[in-house]
Amino acid sequence: MLTATFATPYYAVIFTSLRGDDEHHAYEQAAQRMVELAREQPGFLGVESARGSDGLGITVSYWTSEAAIAHWKNHAEHREARQQGRERWYQGFTTRVCRVERDYAGLKN
Amino acid sequence: MLTATFATPYYAVIFTSLRGDDEHHAYEQAAQRMVELAREQPGFLGVESARGSDGLGITVSYWTSEAAIAHWKNHAEHREARQQGRERWYQGFTTRVCRVERDYAGLKN
Repeated sequence: MLTATFATPYYAVIFTSLRGDDEHHAYEQAAQRMVELAREQPGFLGVESARGSDGLGITVSYWTSEAAIAHWKNHAEHREARQQGRERWYQGFTTRVCRVERDYAGLKN
Repeated sequence: MLTATFATPYYAVIFTSLRGDDEHHAYEQAAQRMVELAREQPGFLGVESARGSDGLGITVSYWTSEAAIAHWKNHAEHREARQQGRERWYQGFTTRVCRVERDYAGLKN
């Protein structure tokens, strides 16, 4: 699903990662759990995620403030999941913290 | 492919879109042409793109400055492609212009 747009400025965390085909089900469960947990955090606005058949995935989460991102980064279960991601799931990944300056949405009726 | 990281601050354009299954080949050709054209623009740093089986796609392009983004936005062929996207390819889309404050990469050997 596409998320809504939000009042600017707000913050985006762009997480790009490269995965192989291994442990597909276990990975999907872990990733879904992290989305559910993120939704419960203060300052969470929304999340969008896609992974193509080449193994490249992009997840963008949206937050009200940098403080909210820092709080989520320090969540114990999230820290464990990131550790597991580094060791087990990802061939490579990049995290970018961004300030969203403006947005435009186009939706058909 | 994952892109490199870059010296901060730089800029990201997050383009999220929802597509159906129609005109797959023609769409892929048009999307690939836009990536090739973007690579030739001043201030272009890199691009990452993924589309899942649910039709949600995320493309993030990286730029040295807001001026580079404005220049690309005004490119005649890019304007035509966006018009075609609105009318023909996308059920919905969102564009977000962001300032990347910091990034972290993890790559396995």
